[in-house]
Formats: sequence, structure tokens, C-alpha cells
Amino acid sequence: MEISNSISNELTLKETAKFLKKHDNFVILTHSSPDGDTLGAGYALFYGLKEIGKIAAVICADVIPKKYDYFVHETDNIDESKATVIAVDVATKELLGSLCENFGDKVDLCIDHHISNSKFAKNLYLDASASATCEIIFELLELMNVNINSGAASAIYTGIATDTGCFKYSNVTAKTHIIASKLFEYDIDPAEINKIMFDTKSRKLLELERMVLDTAEYHFDNKCILLAVTAEMQQQTGCSGSDLEGIAVISRSVEGVIAGISIKQTGDEEFKISLRTYPPLDASAIAKSIGGGGHKAAAGATVCGTLKEVKKMVLDAVKTNMEESDAGISSHK
Amino acid sequence: MEISNSISNELTLKETAKFLKKHDNFVILTHSSPDGDTLGAGYALFYGLKEIGKIAAVICADVIPKKYDYFVHETDNIDESKATVIAVDVATKELLGSLCENFGDKVDLCIDHHISNSKFAKNLYLDASASATCEIIFELLELMNVNINSGAASAIYTGIATDTGCFKYSNVTAKTHIIASKLFEYDIDPAEINKIMFDTKSRKLLELERMVLDTAEYHFDNKCILLAVTAEMQQQTGCSGSDLEGIAVISRSVEGVIAGISIKQTGDEEFKISLRTYPPLDASAIAKSIGGGGHKAAAGATVCGTLKEVKKMVLDAVKTNMEESDAGISSHK
Repeated sequence: MEISNSISNELTLKETAKFLKKHDNFVILTHSSPDGDTLGAGYALFYGLKEIGKIAAVICADVIPKKYDYFVHETDNIDESKATVIAVDVATKELLGSLCENFGDKVDLCIDHHISNSKFAKNLYLDASASATCEIIFELLELMNVNINSGAASAIYTGIATDTGCFKYSNVTAKTHIIASKLFEYDIDPAEINKIMFDTKSRKLLELERMVLDTAEYHFDNKCILLAVTAEMQQQTGCSGSDLEGIAVISRSVEGVIAGISIKQTGDEEFKISLRTYPPLDASAIAKSIGGGGHKAAAGATVCGTLKEVKKMVLDAVKTNMEESDAGISSHK
Repeated sequence: MEISNSISNELTLKETAKFLKKHDNFVILTHSSPDGDTLGAGYALFYGLKEIGKIAAVICADVIPKKYDYFVHETDNIDESKATVIAVDVATKELLGSLCENFGDKVDLCIDHHISNSKFAKNLYLDASASATCEIIFELLELMNVNINSGAASAIYTGIATDTGCFKYSNVTAKTHIIASKLFEYDIDPAEINKIMFDTKSRKLLELERMVLDTAEYHFDNKCILLAVTAEMQQQTGCSGSDLEGIAVISRSVEGVIAGISIKQTGDEEFKISLRTYPPLDASAIAKSIGGGGHKAAAGATVCGTLKEVKKMVLDAVKTNMEESDAGISSHK
């Protein structure tokens, strides 16, 4: 019997450092629809490897949003076929997007913090207790005694800040804050980074939010809010894709609400549902019952039908979970 | 010539600790319209003083919002006339609100981080480099070797988080993050605290935001946004006072905008103006020109007239500042 190549060889941080020192030419892959953590980790690793004389290129399947320009840098041109391939913050090879075809089965090392990592890479350094992959990259560069330049420090701060909602979420640990305090010693501007990442909204997004708030429906004694983004709203405002991520955030922030539903139209009769719940509700159970999946507090599904049908389907699923979990007698503060 | 009693005797942190140890009965005053930092500092100091056998009462001129219930505790009944009076996070005696009459000239010690502190107290410990007064209280309790219980730790975390926008603003230093990392060693739930402080919006506020977004006006090549909250909107939604603070935040977060104006109706023909600006604009100069004042990035004024007149007045003032500062050729990212 052959050993499946979908089981990674798990490395320690020290072995990961040794691995990087041993090789000279690297392709660093980020996940598609790139966020602050995958880009921060990719570029921080790039800057670190350059400091010790290596050749490296950062590659992403999608266009990198301009807001990351302050740390995104031109990387090296290399012969990809001869390079050592590293994936950062990539939990499954499918998340490489269009790079999956070329690189999916050729990743030599994956550095990640997702407990759900599918172990698709030959070698894996996984620390699920890290708030962000950037936390790991910082520790790695520190362990390797590599000079952290201001680009690397900005990139690492960005990844940690974006994956923790600026130190707001439950994935933050004492170590996260210790690393942040050390990053302040470098030439970075955290307040400016946070302004770009958290406090800058496009005018079109503000307009979309206004429209979405107009659609707000409350259900089940106001314990559930439902927000909808129709194709028409997307056309009218010019918002799409990652512009729409903030809508789910609104749905989870209303006082007394334990089930936040946001519905985004993705096709003629196709909708993407995002669920955000608080105990005792279970977003993953609700999502599963309509063909999706996810975590206990955040899950999603893609469903077909008219908006009216889709609303009914998800509201029925929420109601069932409320009844099963006795949510009628409990609610979050 | 008498020495004015409006000049405080400035203490070191060590002298402040000594002062607290020397006395036994304390009244701790917070500022009116209490926020997370003044309450956090007041209650953390209360918990700390209790740990070393002192008697202390925390007093605030206004009702303490329920959201702080997780660290607000019943304090001691004491004879106020015989107690040592401490003010925390109180920059001027007027900020004591209705307590100013009784206590304004009787504050024995003020612990504060506002550079603008008017030195109204007999003794003052001022650290303007601290992100929050709670940062100072943590250092003080640590220096005094006082046990920090979970109530004190929650209170201190709250003050630091709320005064820094959860570690987002430019007042955060390496020390702020080091203190945060130490607070994680205590029995506190930072994610839950942050949810209560930052991610909980009342339904009425969501409704108000929808209405306010409907009023959004853009001026001067979209470099300026103007939002208005009329008396009618406040009546319709039931929002008032501190509910309205978030509106100025919206005005400063729109991409490309360097002048965010929010206008709140406070009387029949009276409006409170909040200004949020980015370089090269100067909010304090704009505010001053219409009879108000404040800081370079955030300032305000109260003006009289119809909404139309008030809008014209503030827009003219912004235009003047734009012209004087050559804002036409520069803008924030």
C-alpha cells in the first residue's frame, strides 16, 4: 500500500528554519482572493529571504488590492520549475485558485495557522494557536536571526491586525500582543495601516450599506436579522466581491441578535448565504441543513431559487436550530 | 503674592503609590458622560485599594451605562467629607459635571493622561504618553505590588481598548501592547469585552445610520462629506447623546474624504458640528473660525441658525481652510 501524498511531513519551527536556509530559490504562493494575512506572510517571508541572499518570487492567482501597496514590492523573476515552492496561509490546495493546476501538487512547504489545513503540501509547519500566519513568520524570522526590515514589519503587522480584527477577536493571545509590541520597534506606522485596513470605506460601499440597511428584516422576536444584497444593488453601486464582506459584519453586530443572515445574489437564481451566530445557535449546523458548511459562529452556503424562496429556506433553517437549541430562552448580551 | 491653587504639585509614579498607601479612605471621581477609560481607571483603582485593605467609593455625576456591568461593582459607603479625593482621567474640574460644585476644588490627587490637564488638583500624576489612564493604573498597581483581580484586569483592559479604538490609533505604543499581553494572564475575556464595546449596535442606531446615510452630501470634488442628524431623526429613532458619537466616525472613514462634517441638531435653531480632518486640513482652525475649538484632526463647535444656514457656514469655513492649505492638490489615501 502506498502512503498517500496528501499527508504532510510535519515540521517544527526549527526544522522549518533549516528548510529555508537549505534552499536558495523560492516561489511563495498566497491564497486566492488575497487578504492581509496571506499577503503579509508572503511578503514578510520574501523580505526575510532577501536579507539572507536568497532569490524569491511572491505569486497570487488574483490581483492584489492597491490598499496593500505600502508593503507589496516587486519580487524576483525566477524559473518556477526549479524553485522550492512555499505556500503561506493556504489551508487547501484549491484555495490557490488558478495556481492550483500548476502548483497544487508541488508545494514543498506550507506554513499555516488553519486547524483545517488539509496537509496537501510535502512539508507543513502548522500552528493553529497562532492568530495569524504572520505571527508564525515573525517567530520564524526571529528564530533565523534574520533582519526584519520595515517592509517585513509592516507586512507582519498587517497580517496580524487583519486576522484579529485589530486585536478584537478570540484568536488573540498574550503572544499576539507581545509580537505587536516588538513590531513597534521597527519603522512602521500602525495607526496609518489600521486606518487603511479598517477605517477607509469607499463611497460606493457607503451607498451599498445604505441600500442594504433599507432591506433589513427582523425575525423571531428580533433575535434574527436578515440583510439582502441584490444583483441590482451591486450594479447600481458598482460593488462586488470583497466589497460585500462587511455586510456579514453588520448582521452580527446588532444588539440582541443571535442569528445574522446576509444574502448576496451571485447569479440569476443563485444566492450566497452568510450566517453569523451566537450561542446557543450553531451556524455550521444551520449551513449544513441547506447544503453548506463552516464554523460554529460563522458559516455559509450557496443556494438556488428566487430571493423569496431562498429567504424562506434559510429562515426555516434558523428557526429549526433555534428550537433545537432552546434559543427562545437565551440570548447574547 | 499667593501661589495659585490651580497649579498642581506634580508627583512621580512612586510618589503616587506612596500617597495611596498613606491614606485609608478614598472617594474616586470619574468624569461626567463616563467612558471606558475613566470608569475602568476608577474601578481598577477601587479593586486595587480594596486588595490592600482600604475603603473606597467610586462616584460619577452621570448614570453608568449598563454595558460596563461586567466590571462595575458596588463600592463602599464612606463619609465623603473625611475622605481623600482622587480624580481619574479628569482633565479639568468642569468635566466632573455636577460633582464639580462639591469636589471641584477638593481633589487631592488627579491621575490622568490628557496633555491638556488644567492642573486643578492639589497633586497630579500626569503621563501624556499613556494611551489611556488605565495604562497608568496598571503600572501603579504593579509598582505597588497589589494583587490585580479579574475585575481590575477587565476594567483596565476596557479602558485601554476603548481609548485606543482597540489598539488602532496613534496613541498606542509598544508599552500598550505589553500591558495588554500581561492582562491576558488574568481571568478576563477580551473578545467578549471587545464585542460589547465595539461590535454591538442597537437596532435604533442602525436605523439612525440608515437615515443619516440618506442625507450624505459630497462637496469640493468629493473631498468633503457632510452628514446631518436632525431633531426629527432623533425623535423617530429614539437615539440621543452618546448614541450619536458614531456618526462622526462614519464621516472620517470615507475614501478620499479629507473633511468629514457631521451636524447634530441640539435645539430649535442650534446645531453641534463635529469636524474630522486629514492633513493638510486643520479641524481646529476650521472650528475656531465658527466659534469652536479642538485638535488638528478632530474639533467641534456649536452654532445657531437654520440647518441650511449652518451647512453654508461650515462649508464656507472648510473651503477657506482648503484654499489656505492647498488641499486642492493633496489628499489622504
